[in-house]
Amino acid sequence: MDWIIRVDTRTGNVRKERATSEELGWGGRLLVAKVLLREVPPTCEPLGRHNKLLFACGLLADAPITTTGQLSVGGKSPLTGGVKESNVGGFAGKRLARLGVRALILEDSPKLPSCRTLYVSTGKVELVDAPELRRLWVGDTFKALRTRYGKAAGLIAIGPAGEMLMYGAGVAVSDDEDVQVRYAARGGLGALMGSKGIKAVVIDDSGAEPPAFADRELLMRGARALVDGLMSDPKTENRHMYGTPAILDLANRSGLLPTRNFSSGSFEHADSINGEYVRKSIAKRGGEGRSGTGCVAGCAIRCSNVWPDRTGRKIVASVQYENIALLGSNCGIGDMDRIAEMNDLCNQVGVDAIETGAAIAVAMEAGVIGFGDSEGAKGLIRQIGEGTYLGRILGNGVVVTGRLLGVRRVPAVKGQAIPGYDPRALKGNGVTYVTSPMGADHTAGNAFETLNTIKPTGREKQVESSRMLQVRAAMLDSLGLCLFTRPPIRKNPKMLLDMLKGRYGRGYTIGDARRIGEDCLDTEREFNKRAGVDERLRPMPEFMQEEALPPTGAVFDIPMEEMTGVWDVKLSEDDI
Amino acid sequence: MDWIIRVDTRTGNVRKERATSEELGWGGRLLVAKVLLREVPPTCEPLGRHNKLLFACGLLADAPITTTGQLSVGGKSPLTGGVKESNVGGFAGKRLARLGVRALILEDSPKLPSCRTLYVSTGKVELVDAPELRRLWVGDTFKALRTRYGKAAGLIAIGPAGEMLMYGAGVAVSDDEDVQVRYAARGGLGALMGSKGIKAVVIDDSGAEPPAFADRELLMRGARALVDGLMSDPKTENRHMYGTPAILDLANRSGLLPTRNFSSGSFEHADSINGEYVRKSIAKRGGEGRSGTGCVAGCAIRCSNVWPDRTGRKIVASVQYENIALLGSNCGIGDMDRIAEMNDLCNQVGVDAIETGAAIAVAMEAGVIGFGDSEGAKGLIRQIGEGTYLGRILGNGVVVTGRLLGVRRVPAVKGQAIPGYDPRALKGNGVTYVTSPMGADHTAGNAFETLNTIKPTGREKQVESSRMLQVRAAMLDSLGLCLFTRPPIRKNPKMLLDMLKGRYGRGYTIGDARRIGEDCLDTEREFNKRAGVDERLRPMPEFMQEEALPPTGAVFDIPMEEMTGVWDVKLSEDDI
Repeated sequence: MDWIIRVDTRTGNVRKERATSEELGWGGRLLVAKVLLREVPPTCEPLGRHNKLLFACGLLADAPITTTGQLSVGGKSPLTGGVKESNVGGFAGKRLARLGVRALILEDSPKLPSCRTLYVSTGKVELVDAPELRRLWVGDTFKALRTRYGKAAGLIAIGPAGEMLMYGAGVAVSDDEDVQVRYAARGGLGALMGSKGIKAVVIDDSGAEPPAFADRELLMRGARALVDGLMSDPKTENRHMYGTPAILDLANRSGLLPTRNFSSGSFEHADSINGEYVRKSIAKRGGEGRSGTGCVAGCAIRCSNVWPDRTGRKIVASVQYENIALLGSNCGIGDMDRIAEMNDLCNQVGVDAIETGAAIAVAMEAGVIGFGDSEGAKGLIRQIGEGTYLGRILGNGVVVTGRLLGVRRVPAVKGQAIPGYDPRALKGNGVTYVTSPMGADHTAGNAFETLNTIKPTGREKQVESSRMLQVRAAMLDSLGLCLFTRPPIRKNPKMLLDMLKGRYGRGYTIGDARRIGEDCLDTEREFNKRAGVDERLRPMPEFMQEEALPPTGAVFDIPMEEMTGVWDVKLSEDDI
Repeated sequence: MDWIIRVDTRTGNVRKERATSEELGWGGRLLVAKVLLREVPPTCEPLGRHNKLLFACGLLADAPITTTGQLSVGGKSPLTGGVKESNVGGFAGKRLARLGVRALILEDSPKLPSCRTLYVSTGKVELVDAPELRRLWVGDTFKALRTRYGKAAGLIAIGPAGEMLMYGAGVAVSDDEDVQVRYAARGGLGALMGSKGIKAVVIDDSGAEPPAFADRELLMRGARALVDGLMSDPKTENRHMYGTPAILDLANRSGLLPTRNFSSGSFEHADSINGEYVRKSIAKRGGEGRSGTGCVAGCAIRCSNVWPDRTGRKIVASVQYENIALLGSNCGIGDMDRIAEMNDLCNQVGVDAIETGAAIAVAMEAGVIGFGDSEGAKGLIRQIGEGTYLGRILGNGVVVTGRLLGVRRVPAVKGQAIPGYDPRALKGNGVTYVTSPMGADHTAGNAFETLNTIKPTGREKQVESSRMLQVRAAMLDSLGLCLFTRPPIRKNPKMLLDMLKGRYGRGYTIGDARRIGEDCLDTEREFNKRAGVDERLRPMPEFMQEEALPPTGAVFDIPMEEMTGVWDVKLSEDDI
């Protein structure tokens, strides 16, 4: 148990080593940060021989705790040039944890371009030539892998975009029914996987020994408390019913919904892309459509869904707020079927839907196609998969798209597209985008939950709030828990301490648990500083600071000196 | 006299102010660095409202001293993200100096895309709408400007590449006969000019008062000594006869000539692109062909030429070593007529031939066209001018080309293409590429002159040598003198002190003169540090460090810690 497996993608050599006691204190995102800082030269070429791609399990990943199937994928990001951890549901994470693997680390890169599968099981870990998978779409890749490796395998793959080393490429993970495609979407980790010549990773956990816990009873007590806490939180019911699109109406009313390349914060067709519409349409259409499905086994929240077409046939699973915002309103598209088709195409060619939606909107501003042209947009995503020159431009993200098409309004921080919260109308997220080592990433500390307690267009308390949100996100990402477990854990942190003590035998205090998040951020920040992507060097785009956003008229006006104060915010010892 | 003129490209406002006594101590490259550090936020968007484009005259620019027509063009580089000064011959610089203008500074940027001419004369400075020039090739632009402004105007323009904000775009300057097109080619300053909505600058010095010198006789004594020194230097005769291609044979024999995307240091067709071939062919073909022409009025070296086709009609002026190396051998092309045609196309669409040659070779490695395919290459350069998607990729430089075409062997430092000296076989240049604030730039400190005194593939003395070369280059770039004046000035520095005292009345010591260069480098370095493009963050490409270069088998192996020692090298007080 508790292995660290290293695969040399040049020689094919595999090393399987026991995690040290220090390494056992790291999980998920923290483990990614620690290994990168220890082993990867911060100024190395992200797609060169010296970068490493990690698949890391959270500290609680092997325990029967709800939502802990989250898998951290990490490396030096091609897109941001800094540390990147992107975590993802699906069924591969849990299987890797069951194999007792804390981290699977892909090292070096093949001498010649190659297309291989990495097979990981109890008995063996090996690279298998898989030329038949070359340039396959993600769905077809999973199909081919399923035929060969059967139902009991966890599948991870990249699409043609990753193979073509596009900086907007993500890493896809299937569920066991191959209904959903989940994505470690952000930061271009699909290109990093492509640079290692690995098209897919197959995790076969059959025959794995059951994990040994220090105190199973205590662990289960904590696990039950978490489920109970989630069940008594009204947000859980809301997420279960409406999915993440639940927030779209409020985002629109708050004037922070990205619309037509971030030129407005509200969209006139919000009614036809909001949570209510999604829920009702799925219910009405029936067939393969589903609301309230889970992205990992045993999830108590189940905020995912399956979006069907009018005949009931699945278009994509799952439709989520971010993708609706970036592919929909931000492209001036108010038709859920078309958005779902675009989302599916992103999933198939293997690119981050946020980055790609932002890039398409910039191309729309450049006049490549018009705002609202969903058929044109679908054609552009297909071009990404085909690797046409325009497709390569778009597939490499919003910054390069703006640069090559001569558009100066480029919504990105640290080279990465801004997600579904315009930082002018939700300034806490602006602070997170600028100061988080991840760049513009809502999951790194999302201030949307402070909408009613902190004035979103004001400067007050945004820095303090972002700090707490970032620490909490980093902690949960390191534990392997979904970010949506925040409310019950905050309310009753003891459940978390029980889970950790039950798993490891070691008594964590609330401060110890919080320090997992703090340590993670400090480590990431140090890597970024050495890599030259310190936040001071990568400010908010100028148009966000100078162009008033309708309807609030807000501009982003928190000075850099104030934002970097995020690192000096002192959190109280018993807060988490 | 000694004016600083600021043009607000948003409002059209013009401010003309006397240079302060401090500013009078700055010229050319030093003036660019000082103004950038003082006025431009280092992390600003290079094509946004806060960057500034400078045209700056050297300290000796208004004096009748040979080679002093060099004009410094500067700003924060879109390509490198750091400070950029690129200097250029042609006849505009001298005319600007005659107007008593130390610096012409373009500020802010227009609200809407615009195409204007900036007209500068004794009586007025104004922005003139010029929609008729939109997307014109550089030659046609000069023709149209000449018709309107007559023979006595100095002309500066960008091509379609600059208008389309391509990072590989340069700034072109004509001579009075419109035979040569000279380029401030490097760093993407053409895109910066395009972002200001300025297609052309017209310098009309008719009616300008003759400059007042503190001691004309002393000045002329220094000026004559410089000419005498040049005339007695055998290198001058060599340059006059063969032009800069004179060095190609030695570069090839030394195994440092970029060949087929830097995969070799020697080229089997060197004989048909070397200085001897260039000279003989021009002589044989006659017609408009010329050897030994000057790029500025009154040059004593006259290393330029006019390359004619077989019928004697000009293809391009001038063909130079760097362009032959990058468009020729580095693309596997050994036919001078085709290279000249490619060079002309670069000049016409308005891109740096070094950056573009490097980008085309990377596209060849990606298989877009084959190595040696000159017709294909010409088509690619035309595509840059047309703004096709592939053209936009190439026109934005070698780094983006490598990224978008999935090529990992990308010859660039600080985002800028490596010029005609492979740093593995001429390690002094490698030190310059990495440590110079300019990025990969041979004019920032070219170790080619040390070929016989320092082992080019060895590590010894390269850092010390690069330091001296960089200081000297920065000094000359600030004085407005051509780099080829180095040998006589080094031999007899007093001529320089005479010129400075004759011009300004102030007594400079050798140390004072050298400190112009040191101050320049320190100022640039500080700007870059604040901009996040410190040399430690932008190392030599990994393939240069890992892939042995035939035929020498050299790799670039000077460690970063050793290279950054360049800043600690102490120069003796009487060296220059």
